[in-house]
Amino acid sequence: MNGATSVNGPQHAGATGPFAWIAEQDRTRRAAGLRRELRPRPAESALLDLAGNDYLGLTRHPEVTRAGADACLRWGAGATGSRLVTGSTALHAELEAELADFTGFEAALVFASGYAANLAAVTALTAPGTLLVSDAANHASLIDGCRLSRATTEVVRHADPDAVAKALDGHRGAAVVVSDTVFSVDGDAAPLAALAAVCREYGAGLLVDDAHGLGVLGAEGRGAAAAAGLAGAPDLVCTATLSKALGAQGGVVLGPAAVIEHLVNAARTFIFDTGLAPAAAGAALGALRLLRREPERAGRSRAVARDFHRRLTGAGLESSAPDACVVSVRAPSADSAVAWAAACRAEGLAVGCFRPPSVPDGVSRLRLTARCDLTDSQVADAADIIVRTAPRP
Amino acid sequence: MNGATSVNGPQHAGATGPFAWIAEQDRTRRAAGLRRELRPRPAESALLDLAGNDYLGLTRHPEVTRAGADACLRWGAGATGSRLVTGSTALHAELEAELADFTGFEAALVFASGYAANLAAVTALTAPGTLLVSDAANHASLIDGCRLSRATTEVVRHADPDAVAKALDGHRGAAVVVSDTVFSVDGDAAPLAALAAVCREYGAGLLVDDAHGLGVLGAEGRGAAAAAGLAGAPDLVCTATLSKALGAQGGVVLGPAAVIEHLVNAARTFIFDTGLAPAAAGAALGALRLLRREPERAGRSRAVARDFHRRLTGAGLESSAPDACVVSVRAPSADSAVAWAAACRAEGLAVGCFRPPSVPDGVSRLRLTARCDLTDSQVADAADIIVRTAPRP
Ligand SMILES: Cc1ncc(COP(=O)(O)O)c(C=O)c1O
Ligand SMILES: Cc1ncc(COP(=O)(O)O)c(C=O)c1O
Repeated sequence: MNGATSVNGPQHAGATGPFAWIAEQDRTRRAAGLRRELRPRPAESALLDLAGNDYLGLTRHPEVTRAGADACLRWGAGATGSRLVTGSTALHAELEAELADFTGFEAALVFASGYAANLAAVTALTAPGTLLVSDAANHASLIDGCRLSRATTEVVRHADPDAVAKALDGHRGAAVVVSDTVFSVDGDAAPLAALAAVCREYGAGLLVDDAHGLGVLGAEGRGAAAAAGLAGAPDLVCTATLSKALGAQGGVVLGPAAVIEHLVNAARTFIFDTGLAPAAAGAALGALRLLRREPERAGRSRAVARDFHRRLTGAGLESSAPDACVVSVRAPSADSAVAWAAACRAEGLAVGCFRPPSVPDGVSRLRLTARCDLTDSQVADAADIIVRTAPRP
Repeated sequence: MNGATSVNGPQHAGATGPFAWIAEQDRTRRAAGLRRELRPRPAESALLDLAGNDYLGLTRHPEVTRAGADACLRWGAGATGSRLVTGSTALHAELEAELADFTGFEAALVFASGYAANLAAVTALTAPGTLLVSDAANHASLIDGCRLSRATTEVVRHADPDAVAKALDGHRGAAVVVSDTVFSVDGDAAPLAALAAVCREYGAGLLVDDAHGLGVLGAEGRGAAAAAGLAGAPDLVCTATLSKALGAQGGVVLGPAAVIEHLVNAARTFIFDTGLAPAAAGAALGALRLLRREPERAGRSRAVARDFHRRLTGAGLESSAPDACVVSVRAPSADSAVAWAAACRAEGLAVGCFRPPSVPDGVSRLRLTARCDLTDSQVADAADIIVRTAPRP
């Protein structure tokens, strides 16, 4: 990728002194073709965006940006303090009540990011001696939560309830099973009903990250838990982000009221972090209300994903069936994935390019995201470009 | 404290099933008088806010909220993806360049929160075998960074360069010393020059968190590193938040360009987190520009803090001299601190109340914050109220 990182003044080959080892790592990364650089985008771009996570086309929707702007003007640019000191506004409370109501959980707690919400949930719901059973393809923030917790973590095969049962079977004492609902790289869904059944059999808690499910899964976009008939269950805690389908920033933990009250008292990334900025809270609330008025956005976004998948596999590309809005297409190598993404870009298409170390299995991919506001002909044209620019086998 | 947490539907005494242990912890917290509840505030309040971290009075400044609102309308309510995919806008790059220029560092990288910036810096600048030397009073986010890193952490006595030297003395190999510049509970400054000298003697890196220094310390608010003549040093990395003096949300890491480029490639809370929302980036940039035009805000905020301290100690209260804008006043017990804060509130004053487990030394305190936009008579009246409502010894 080209473009420059945002540095002040001339770029240096490497730091000296105690951070000199960084230059060595940089050389290794360059040699492997794995060095990443930031590429700031302009406000208006001619590229068709198939790389972002704005599944419902809401992040630039005038109603949503207006709600964000108005919240900034009315409540201030920042929350001014942690949620327990000055950082809780009536706007945060309103957002939490509507998120809980929409998803079907008893209570909700909003964080500065989905990352912070995941760190909070994993660490505050476990203690020394707890067994954490974690899917091998879980998001980095869940993994970091496991690392930060004082629990013992057992990583199990991806999307395998039997492996989860086996891990729980040998354990006495508290256990929590942790999984993404929709996996961010390949876009496949977790076997939620089977996981919930295994958890109940063994008396384990279930903690799921619905970052890529909220707003997208279920008839009205109420998320993975509602779609599986599990929302509001006393043994289920669900996290999500406000930064994808809801087009803003922030994270949320959804669960029984007692669990949420416990997080208020025990979660370090809640207690010691400044509250979410009012603009983000207001925009997320605006997006949620718009989705409730236009629930067909959820189904349309998934239909677009299936259309992409059908067209790409029809042309012989290797892609797994999407369960939500993420469509992943395999590339033969990291280099060819980068070249492929660049060729798409030259044809007016922004696509994601995932390569090691962002992909745990070492397989490089293009990652496309479906949006409900893409027209059928945009999907057809975009699929054509991806097929046309694909590396020859 | 009174007020309700934002729950959906009736409150329950506790969860059942795998999370039933939470009810027990809740009872223990209640019995100890340490249970916390959220108290959402209205958009306009009659209370004088001495609890938030809006040191420069910028979070509701019309120029700053307008900058935030305009950024939301122009760039969208969210960044739409991680910074390496779609989440870097020209606005982020502009903010980074201006933050680096203002603070005197070669490069800057903006995060979704100061918490995320600290996790990133601590984990990405260390490796297995690195010795992390961490001040005993460091912020939770630095502590979590140490826990997440694969380094070995040695916690040393608060603000003690000799203790740091002793820890480094026995160690061979890479070492990084980690400290807040201004400690968030007591408001005292780290002995930065002495720490830097010790680090150089032993070839260790120095990582400081300037969350409560940026915008406040130094003649023009350029922060602790500039005030100590250390900004831009090749062995110094500095983090800060955009959520206190700059009135918005977000975090930043400042340092040599090679270090910043390394974070782009290696820091998990950068790579796997959605970019900072445009509204927050725009508001922080607006605040920074306003501060550059009105640099006297920095000195005034510190003068207000000293005025508070002089008045409170003059009336016999126990308070340590503030080095920035945080003024801490000791309370005899957690219960009396809560009662004291409530009495202030009844007189129209919002003050922070810190008690275990938020205070590592177990001493409960009122925490007051100075703002540059408080008038001398507001300070005098507020100090009177605090003195008048103080618990009798
Ligand atoms: C599965 C998953 N969980 C959590 C997150 C983190 O959410 P946020 O970006 O709001 O911090 C992401 C992506 O960013 C994600 O893909
Ligand atoms: C010293 C210190 N560092 C870091 C942070 C975290 O910054 P943020 O709230 O922007 O995540 C805070 C407070 O919130 C702090 O007081």
